Amino acid sequence: MTGTPPFELYAYWRTSATYRVRVALNLKGLEAHERIVNLDAGEQRSEAFLKINPLGAIPALIAPGQPPLTQSLAILEFLEETAPEPALLPADPHGRARVRSIAAMLAADTHPLITPRVRKYLTTTGGFDDAAWRAWQIQWFSTGLQAVERRLAADAATGTYCHGDTVTMADICLLSIVVVTRVFKIVVPDIPLIDGIVALCEAQAAFAKADPFRQEGAPKP
Amino acid sequence: MTGTPPFELYAYWRTSATYRVRVALNLKGLEAHERIVNLDAGEQRSEAFLKINPLGAIPALIAPGQPPLTQSLAILEFLEETAPEPALLPADPHGRARVRSIAAMLAADTHPLITPRVRKYLTTTGGFDDAAWRAWQIQWFSTGLQAVERRLAADAATGTYCHGDTVTMADICLLSIVVVTRVFKIVVPDIPLIDGIVALCEAQAAFAKADPFRQEGAPKP
Repeated sequence: MTGTPPFELYAYWRTSATYRVRVALNLKGLEAHERIVNLDAGEQRSEAFLKINPLGAIPALIAPGQPPLTQSLAILEFLEETAPEPALLPADPHGRARVRSIAAMLAADTHPLITPRVRKYLTTTGGFDDAAWRAWQIQWFSTGLQAVERRLAADAATGTYCHGDTVTMADICLLSIVVVTRVFKIVVPDIPLIDGIVALCEAQAAFAKADPFRQEGAPKP
Repeated sequence: MTGTPPFELYAYWRTSATYRVRVALNLKGLEAHERIVNLDAGEQRSEAFLKINPLGAIPALIAPGQPPLTQSLAILEFLEETAPEPALLPADPHGRARVRSIAAMLAADTHPLITPRVRKYLTTTGGFDDAAWRAWQIQWFSTGLQAVERRLAADAATGTYCHGDTVTMADICLLSIVVVTRVFKIVVPDIPLIDGIVALCEAQAAFAKADPFRQEGAPKP
């Protein structure tokens, strides 16, 4: 992609969905200038950002001269189609379906339950106190990760990674949930296969560089 | 696909995710024998069904001799790759990303919040009574559909359907949420573009035949 103007990525240090896009860009060797949208300060609802994405959601990835791309899974598929190497989906349709299914268990079934808008509703209208919100987070992080663990354990298609022996979208989505459990200081027990895959991925620069705590705006350890 | 043995689809009359798969199969002229998994009787946790999908979730689509495919978005992509006509994604990468993004706003950002497992948690541990659960359903159905309405209104790529003038995965996911609002007798106001797309889709047999109230096990009107 030498000579291609870089993407702009509207991002925030700790979000799971932004992390997925960061890792995919890194793996494919694509450059993006990050524009920080401070969710804790409500900048996603600022007039300036609503001109970028009227829905007030990050990540938004902008290729030069194009409208913003939104929704992390759609962005991963876009990157896969426009920058195919290295492939983040296997070649066979059943394998692709399995990878996308594991990715959806994490990015669609798990993550939407623990987003800021859900927290806002539950802690105001829903009457949740801090302890109830934390129990809710633990419930869905655990449910999602332990379901994926059972699936990985039960299936011969699992390799050193979620699917075979190369990184796929499933691993990216898996790590995107695990890194956020750390942001919230939650430890999900009894996921040894996942722990192994996480270690293998985090030994790679593409994942390590995307870690929330290494981003601008992250709290110091 | 003449001569191809039909799929088996593990399904239940009222689920949004099953509806998506039904519509896609119908549009592509693919046959599936439905196996009912009665969610209201807890059959998704039965020993028999857990042999099909250890995660206890529907839909599960089985091609003869293959492991079950799960997660509706992954199944739609599988059908698109293996039975490309009629196409449910546009040809250009930006258009494909837009369709997948709208689909994700509905299938990933909206639907997971109103599933039975979330209801179970909120009405037991969460302390929600029936009225609080209903308010929760209305909150997320409205948020999701009104966000899509704003997006459709703001974007020149919107046509007579969500994207241009042919049915895509975005329309399938849109309808999958709207038909379920009816199951719960919820009316989301102020979505005229969506109302128009819904009417256009429901005039077609592929959508009409997939309607929850036309499935085995549905309550009589």
